[in-house]
Amino acid sequence: MKVPERLIQILRSEKHFTIASHINPEGDAIGSAIALALVLKRLDKDVSVYIRDGVPEIYKFLPHCDIVEDTLDVGSLQKRVLIIVDCNEPKRIGFEGELKCKTSIVIDHHETRKDYGDIRWIEPACAATGLMIYYLIKELRVVITPDIATNLYVAIAVDTGTFRYENTTSEVFRTVADLVDKGASPGWIAINLYESWSTKRFNLLREMLNTLEIHNSGPLKVAITVITEDMFKKTGTDASDTEDFSNVPRILKEVDVSVLFRQDGPNKWKASMRSKGDVNVATVAKEFGGGGHRNAAGFITEGDLEKIKAEVIDKIKRLGNN
Amino acid sequence: MKVPERLIQILRSEKHFTIASHINPEGDAIGSAIALALVLKRLDKDVSVYIRDGVPEIYKFLPHCDIVEDTLDVGSLQKRVLIIVDCNEPKRIGFEGELKCKTSIVIDHHETRKDYGDIRWIEPACAATGLMIYYLIKELRVVITPDIATNLYVAIAVDTGTFRYENTTSEVFRTVADLVDKGASPGWIAINLYESWSTKRFNLLREMLNTLEIHNSGPLKVAITVITEDMFKKTGTDASDTEDFSNVPRILKEVDVSVLFRQDGPNKWKASMRSKGDVNVATVAKEFGGGGHRNAAGFITEGDLEKIKAEVIDKIKRLGNN
Repeated sequence: MKVPERLIQILRSEKHFTIASHINPEGDAIGSAIALALVLKRLDKDVSVYIRDGVPEIYKFLPHCDIVEDTLDVGSLQKRVLIIVDCNEPKRIGFEGELKCKTSIVIDHHETRKDYGDIRWIEPACAATGLMIYYLIKELRVVITPDIATNLYVAIAVDTGTFRYENTTSEVFRTVADLVDKGASPGWIAINLYESWSTKRFNLLREMLNTLEIHNSGPLKVAITVITEDMFKKTGTDASDTEDFSNVPRILKEVDVSVLFRQDGPNKWKASMRSKGDVNVATVAKEFGGGGHRNAAGFITEGDLEKIKAEVIDKIKRLGNN
Repeated sequence: MKVPERLIQILRSEKHFTIASHINPEGDAIGSAIALALVLKRLDKDVSVYIRDGVPEIYKFLPHCDIVEDTLDVGSLQKRVLIIVDCNEPKRIGFEGELKCKTSIVIDHHETRKDYGDIRWIEPACAATGLMIYYLIKELRVVITPDIATNLYVAIAVDTGTFRYENTTSEVFRTVADLVDKGASPGWIAINLYESWSTKRFNLLREMLNTLEIHNSGPLKVAITVITEDMFKKTGTDASDTEDFSNVPRILKEVDVSVLFRQDGPNKWKASMRSKGDVNVATVAKEFGGGGHRNAAGFITEGDLEKIKAEVIDKIKRLGNN
């Protein structure tokens, strides 16, 4: 991984920077943005960080997360260097019009056909933007403080499923080893990321798991779970507590597709589908007027739940292998 | 970490070895035993591996797991070197009488006051026995094959909660980085460890979650769950299906300690305790004649479950902060 020389030059020579990342931010977006900001501050720069949707509750443990602002002073941007991290176009940071800045820089690991940015540093083979920021810091020869280490560790951990996804390379492990030496605490971070559920959310999961059915859909096995409005009421939860729930039945070896139906009105259902490997649920979602990606798609429909289940199972049989 | 010189000498000079590990084996026990066996085979030794309860279904993906036998030829042991890994006394490998062998070796990372073993290599500060085997292999200067790397990776991953527990040091990360370079695949291993549940195991978890109670124990919150013999019967499962179950209630933010009681006879209970941060459950386990580490300990006891629960909660209040 080669950090562009011009990027280093600009970071050294310029004074005013705005770092921005994408809407609906997750760990890599937030951790990378904060870490880079802390590094530039150590170089005595004037830095602001913009993320339109702010820092979600579960990432509020990140050191210096209060540096993140959810408003952007577009006017002042003309005199500042804009650094977009973990995405590569103004639209992804939630900006629709023309964005005028002194210089624009993109630092990202997502594949792209866009051409935004005076300097574009894109590494699609890299597991996380946080990893790129780590290499950038090494080039800049800035000391990695415990706060920088923690932000980078979280960035890398979240984008590798805490070292469970295919993108977990030996380079990832060597980088986080160094970050641990610099003060990141794997146990404390994991507790904040994975062991901070509210009891009511846990109770809702329990209710959902008790509805699990496994259906044959041709050669495929479909796990169906349901969350009703009664369950929300009983547990004191709402839709925001169900994030990632549709993934849970994936832990079953035999399951190819997980479908979670969440009630959103007397006869209205929001379906979230998750599939493993090559199984395509985007095609199935389209049939119901929804959309998404091959392994994660969804739709909203109305009617009798048992009939809808039967239709979904039938469509997965016909379209899941497309 | 210093590998005892005499251990290296004996591994080099002797010819016949039996490696044994504990009953109810998990990843560190099995992975360490298999990896050490593969290493000794590369040194042209005659090696057998004994684990009384065999290899649980979820670990059947481990390369060369068929080397593990569930019977022990006690007679022939007199002419063999016995290496006990991931535990430190014959009782833990499921052997009650006197065990006669040519030489006995213990390689373990559990705290202990036992004195079994002609050579005792105990490293309580070490995250996993697999890590010790890794250093041993380095001393022996044996090539780490992909199969050895995979077994060691799983051993270390399981005992660190796949790098989520407090015991995840930079040394752990540097070791697994090397194991990845030697052929271990983090993504493939994670799918095998975490997305390959049998439906019956999932059903057992569901039963367990439905027993969850949260108790106040002084300033600490204790989650108590129970698995009865009736649940095993109802779901067609056994004790080997419960690995890691005691960790699940830890996802609750308010929970400081999780205690899972698993029935093992009409009035007999095996308690697995897991704690967060500084809370010490090893001291609690000791009071009941058990043992373990600060954050993961257990014991076996007999009696009325409700009374035992009350005692445990009381002892956690008194000893959890020691």
